[in-house]
Amino acid sequence: MQIAFVLYPGFTGLDALGPYEFLKMIPNADIRFLAHKKGPVPTDRGLLTVEATHSFEETPSPDLLLVPGSEAETGTAMKDDTLLAWLRTAHETTRWTTSVCSGSLVLAAAGLLKGHPATSHWIAQGLLEKYGAESRPHDRVVQSGKLWTAAGVSAGIDLALSLLLEICGRERTEIIQLLLEYDPQPPLIGGHPDRVSPDILAKAKAEMLTLAQSRNA
Amino acid sequence: MQIAFVLYPGFTGLDALGPYEFLKMIPNADIRFLAHKKGPVPTDRGLLTVEATHSFEETPSPDLLLVPGSEAETGTAMKDDTLLAWLRTAHETTRWTTSVCSGSLVLAAAGLLKGHPATSHWIAQGLLEKYGAESRPHDRVVQSGKLWTAAGVSAGIDLALSLLLEICGRERTEIIQLLLEYDPQPPLIGGHPDRVSPDILAKAKAEMLTLAQSRNA
Repeated sequence: MQIAFVLYPGFTGLDALGPYEFLKMIPNADIRFLAHKKGPVPTDRGLLTVEATHSFEETPSPDLLLVPGSEAETGTAMKDDTLLAWLRTAHETTRWTTSVCSGSLVLAAAGLLKGHPATSHWIAQGLLEKYGAESRPHDRVVQSGKLWTAAGVSAGIDLALSLLLEICGRERTEIIQLLLEYDPQPPLIGGHPDRVSPDILAKAKAEMLTLAQSRNA
Repeated sequence: MQIAFVLYPGFTGLDALGPYEFLKMIPNADIRFLAHKKGPVPTDRGLLTVEATHSFEETPSPDLLLVPGSEAETGTAMKDDTLLAWLRTAHETTRWTTSVCSGSLVLAAAGLLKGHPATSHWIAQGLLEKYGAESRPHDRVVQSGKLWTAAGVSAGIDLALSLLLEICGRERTEIIQLLLEYDPQPPLIGGHPDRVSPDILAKAKAEMLTLAQSRNA
């Protein structure tokens, strides 16, 4: 069982590394971090850098692939023709093609989500629709055949648990969840536009726009 | 505000990188990943490698430090006299000295938890007691003055939110939680010894022992 995490400059670390921590617990999984070439890949603020272990070329047909999102640079990945072509070819033979956060926009840009229900970070739901996907802004994890998409950033962990249930069954999933002590207890209710005040939502939207502008400047 | 994530060979990625993703949203934070020297540090299975941005020596007095745990190599960090000496000195001037998972054992080995309530991964609670800490096996995040310890792996995210509440206040924490869409929805109840069957707990314990043995072989 080969599992490939797609990396690109500016990806959001937790989008890939949250699911990684859970999926690495699949017995005998061949886990790879992919980029155009092996070596360091900076995440969204240039503070955290992660090593790609393999190139896309070396990994033509993973069983499971996962595309993370970014704070603003997803656009770069969405215009990376080599990456998009790799995704289209790899998707032909995957058993699970997955994304976290705005990673679904990269799958969409590769043409893989047309006509499929899918989710993304709450701010990107409208863009999903522009690519012909059916956005599901109230769902944390959306499955459509072998396409699984997760909502923003931390939703990747819930995606990983859902995948583990299908891949390994309930007993193994319960063991993995216990090993990683995934018994979330956020000190505040929130984390979704449906569960915050209009004021908090407006301020978060403004901050996302500022971030995107600073990245594109 | 300087925030230092302590890295060592064999640390568990999510222990540090979950909290990192949330704490990086503190405005103007100076975030550092520390090791004996700059450069790549392998995580617990040697699959994921993360870059240290600074050395311990370059970073004598962070405002906040966080020590991650490991699957089995925490013992190496616990015997690293240079790291332990750095922790003791840095702790004198921190505002927050924190750990995730068995990272609390490293703080304990540095002598910092004696007489303090603290938590750790569920399997390590007994070891905490041996170092003179008061283990709190039912608490996900434990605060004792400026010492904050979290339970296993994924508990680091709840620790980060609790720290953000203190550092930035409620409004900023709500915004960060929304930006990272932290609205956890695990598909199964579990993730803590109190919330699984005795059979699952026994199997998870056996697996932890096997992991520790294979690492020490």
